[in-house]
Amino acid sequence: LFTGIVNAQSEDPLPSWNEGKAKQSIIKFVTAVTTPDSADFVAIPERIATFDNDGTLWAEKPMYFQLFFAIDRIKQLAPQHPEWKEQEPYASILKGDMKAALAGGEKAILDLIMATHAGMTTEEFSQQVTAWLAHAKHPKTQLKFTDMVYQPMLELLAYLRANDFKTYIVSGGGIAFMRPWTEQVYGIPPEQVVGSSIKTQFEMRGDTPVIVGLPELNFLDDKEGKPVAINQYIGRRPIASFGNSDGDLQMLQWTTAGKGPRFALYVHHTDAAREWAYDRDSSVGRLDKGLDEAKQKGWTLVDMKQDWRVIYPSQMAQ
Amino acid sequence: LFTGIVNAQSEDPLPSWNEGKAKQSIIKFVTAVTTPDSADFVAIPERIATFDNDGTLWAEKPMYFQLFFAIDRIKQLAPQHPEWKEQEPYASILKGDMKAALAGGEKAILDLIMATHAGMTTEEFSQQVTAWLAHAKHPKTQLKFTDMVYQPMLELLAYLRANDFKTYIVSGGGIAFMRPWTEQVYGIPPEQVVGSSIKTQFEMRGDTPVIVGLPELNFLDDKEGKPVAINQYIGRRPIASFGNSDGDLQMLQWTTAGKGPRFALYVHHTDAAREWAYDRDSSVGRLDKGLDEAKQKGWTLVDMKQDWRVIYPSQMAQ
Ligand SMILES: [Ca+2]
Ligand SMILES: [Ca+2]
Repeated sequence: LFTGIVNAQSEDPLPSWNEGKAKQSIIKFVTAVTTPDSADFVAIPERIATFDNDGTLWAEKPMYFQLFFAIDRIKQLAPQHPEWKEQEPYASILKGDMKAALAGGEKAILDLIMATHAGMTTEEFSQQVTAWLAHAKHPKTQLKFTDMVYQPMLELLAYLRANDFKTYIVSGGGIAFMRPWTEQVYGIPPEQVVGSSIKTQFEMRGDTPVIVGLPELNFLDDKEGKPVAINQYIGRRPIASFGNSDGDLQMLQWTTAGKGPRFALYVHHTDAAREWAYDRDSSVGRLDKGLDEAKQKGWTLVDMKQDWRVIYPSQMAQ
Repeated sequence: LFTGIVNAQSEDPLPSWNEGKAKQSIIKFVTAVTTPDSADFVAIPERIATFDNDGTLWAEKPMYFQLFFAIDRIKQLAPQHPEWKEQEPYASILKGDMKAALAGGEKAILDLIMATHAGMTTEEFSQQVTAWLAHAKHPKTQLKFTDMVYQPMLELLAYLRANDFKTYIVSGGGIAFMRPWTEQVYGIPPEQVVGSSIKTQFEMRGDTPVIVGLPELNFLDDKEGKPVAINQYIGRRPIASFGNSDGDLQMLQWTTAGKGPRFALYVHHTDAAREWAYDRDSSVGRLDKGLDEAKQKGWTLVDMKQDWRVIYPSQMAQ
């Protein structure tokens, strides 16, 4: 028993992280805020850590994984919508021309989300997500999407929780798309998932109350929306935040502007061989202003190629 | 030590509750869902309990306590708003005529909330609430408002948490008005408080990011809004819900419509001597449809006069 305890304490909490500045900065911060006689000690209830999802906890290329789900839903629903053959972005999707389908930018993406996420109960939608994730494969890796989570970030989440942090997702992705699987995959329960949402409505169907999704945006949890959502859902300012794009910049600013010790980290996608390499010019997950601000303010920049020993959990056995 | 353990187990978890059907129904439910070999056992993460606040956890007469705060703010801000002397509901408030001020019903109340809650940062607002609660007194009892919480409900919250429930507030009251004090008073942390809210905006003031309240309703957490908010904030269906008015009916319906063991409880204000007695005809905290549905469905009805040995914590010493 005694040996077990010693081993647990001396074991590397982040085995998939190569030694270096990024790993050191994480361990230094966690040690400081959890050491009772440290000037930087933070009481347990205030140990709130917020994580972006797409590109921070799992991959996001060639497009957000939620869009693969939406597209498969469009194909599935197409027989009931003959008008889609003439109507964009549906027509392009049904022809398999994703470039044309997404030419409308964020507006086109939101339209797709509405068309595929509204009009059913919250429970029906959750079942659809679960069923889709059980069989859908990423076109490049042929992995299930939930197998494209980042092993080093799973270790980081577990390390923070072992040190009494409460870990949250604060994502531009759909809250209802994430909640069915985040507990199993990340150890993050539904009540600690914050994201974008459509409006919903309470209805009685006979004697049975249901909550139904409406084709109307409720909240877009991106950029300035992230601190707003953190305040709305959590009501405390995080002491640590983790992102990968300019969409996370305001969250990192809000986090680091609080009093006492603060931590901000950007995952920088630098590994074209094992994952993808992109930053300033990428349409998905652009990291431009944030890259400059991270350097200027001394935030932790994870160089994926240098800092991560493996990318996906399946590579652990190798 | 051994004696201590035996005592702890045999001690009454709800000492301010008189013996009777209400108390029995609570203990029976908690025992069933926490007994590992029971058919009704519920895994810890699903043990979500949601509580209305006004009239369920603290008093709400002669008007919602948040309105006392709003009115004191109006008086404080009046010198900067000479136009209020001619403008309702401000004119009546400044004359001390609350009946006239609130004649405009819910709309008038919302206008008051906007005028007093918007235009400052979330941190400034939180400080104001804390400062106000430290000195403001209820006109009838002369107690501080946070001393008008219900001792039996404090015991119920503690009992549920001792049995690994996560306790949430789901209130029509303002989320930003509750969060500064619910952890200290109820043991409910800010991230487990759901309520009505105004819109907020992220802004940079020089180099400092702030979140500022806007004079626009974001969400009214009442009636059909309660299950919608539960789904939005928590993302799980509660297994137990507690309320006192028709504003909680949809929350109780949503809770009890789930599979497996479910619990719904209404606090019925029947004690004119120690608190207030009101139900079907009250403008504040009306319990009419809910009273019928509770009887029809066999939900627990707390008869405050019969079931509660004391009302407020200060009465414990007597
Ligand atoms: Ca991202
Ligand atoms: Ca109430």
